[in-house]
Amino acid sequence: MPDSTRTLKIFFATNNIHKYNEVNAIFKQHTFFQLKFLKTPLVEIQSSNLEEIAIFSLKKCSRIIKNTPIFVEDSGLFIKHLNGFPGPYSAYIFKTIGLKGIIALMKEIEDREAYFQSSIALKIENKINIFTGQVRGQIAQDISDTGWGYDPIFIPESDGIHTFGELGIKKNFISHRFLATLKLIKFLNKYSAD
Amino acid sequence: MPDSTRTLKIFFATNNIHKYNEVNAIFKQHTFFQLKFLKTPLVEIQSSNLEEIAIFSLKKCSRIIKNTPIFVEDSGLFIKHLNGFPGPYSAYIFKTIGLKGIIALMKEIEDREAYFQSSIALKIENKINIFTGQVRGQIAQDISDTGWGYDPIFIPESDGIHTFGELGIKKNFISHRFLATLKLIKFLNKYSAD
Repeated sequence: MPDSTRTLKIFFATNNIHKYNEVNAIFKQHTFFQLKFLKTPLVEIQSSNLEEIAIFSLKKCSRIIKNTPIFVEDSGLFIKHLNGFPGPYSAYIFKTIGLKGIIALMKEIEDREAYFQSSIALKIENKINIFTGQVRGQIAQDISDTGWGYDPIFIPESDGIHTFGELGIKKNFISHRFLATLKLIKFLNKYSAD
Repeated sequence: MPDSTRTLKIFFATNNIHKYNEVNAIFKQHTFFQLKFLKTPLVEIQSSNLEEIAIFSLKKCSRIIKNTPIFVEDSGLFIKHLNGFPGPYSAYIFKTIGLKGIIALMKEIEDREAYFQSSIALKIENKINIFTGQVRGQIAQDISDTGWGYDPIFIPESDGIHTFGELGIKKNFISHRFLATLKLIKFLNKYSAD
């Protein structure tokens, strides 16, 4: 971990305060970097590749930021039987057909394999670095009562019984976003220690 | 119609030769503008607004074009019961869940109202103009044997029985893309006559 007496700031550009809070909790435990919330609507391109989307968004929103590292995060649920759907359009598809739609599309489907992915694009000293976290699991047969987004229908492999939604706060320490954030922090700590 | 002795060129930037051919057939009938195929993958942003997507794509791809008008086109199928889904992500959703997926989502749904929209963004003399065409209709109960894209499941209001797919070449003269293209041509002809 780097010298705590130095002030190390980093921007997280996002429009989603929940994401910021989730990532900030991990930062507080693992690094002296201070996470700043840069509230901004991101420009996201249409692509089936989360990393490509994150890099494009980062380039757009980092134009006005000098000398301070900045990152963005993009995530999605990829269902094998549906060829990766809803994937990078998870937010839009959640708003339109919702969890009920996903359950309808998966009705009587045996192969329920899916994964969540989080991709972080970081700009530091004019270089872009990518950190990705994935969690494998299954699409549940029913929607659980707790959790937000796709959490009520995703059962992580490591648990095998409960959905992300049912795992509550525990989810935040096994999630795809947690894994990507840890990679980012590891890089930052090493970087600042050099 | 403008003076046929003048050479009037216009670029259609698209990656889709079928779209080019469809639009070119309309150009040949209605204007002396020569349609040039500018084959290019478009950068499309994530937005629920087709016009916004078209304007962004146009700005990106028109940077290198000087003195010649250029346009892009974006289209989608919007299903009322599904809150506009698949909408601007029609291409991605077609590739992943396909027509079978749409039919599954609409199973036992009474309200089958939908519309196709085509939005054209034109840049001429450094100004951007938008032309939009819409066709209202219904989602069929089954997938028809003929047609591409979403055509085999969309029954236009003006017909009420056959899908776009079953209408064959006739579709091209009542479609959303036809209506948007006619508006574009009307504007161009008036413009060049001034």
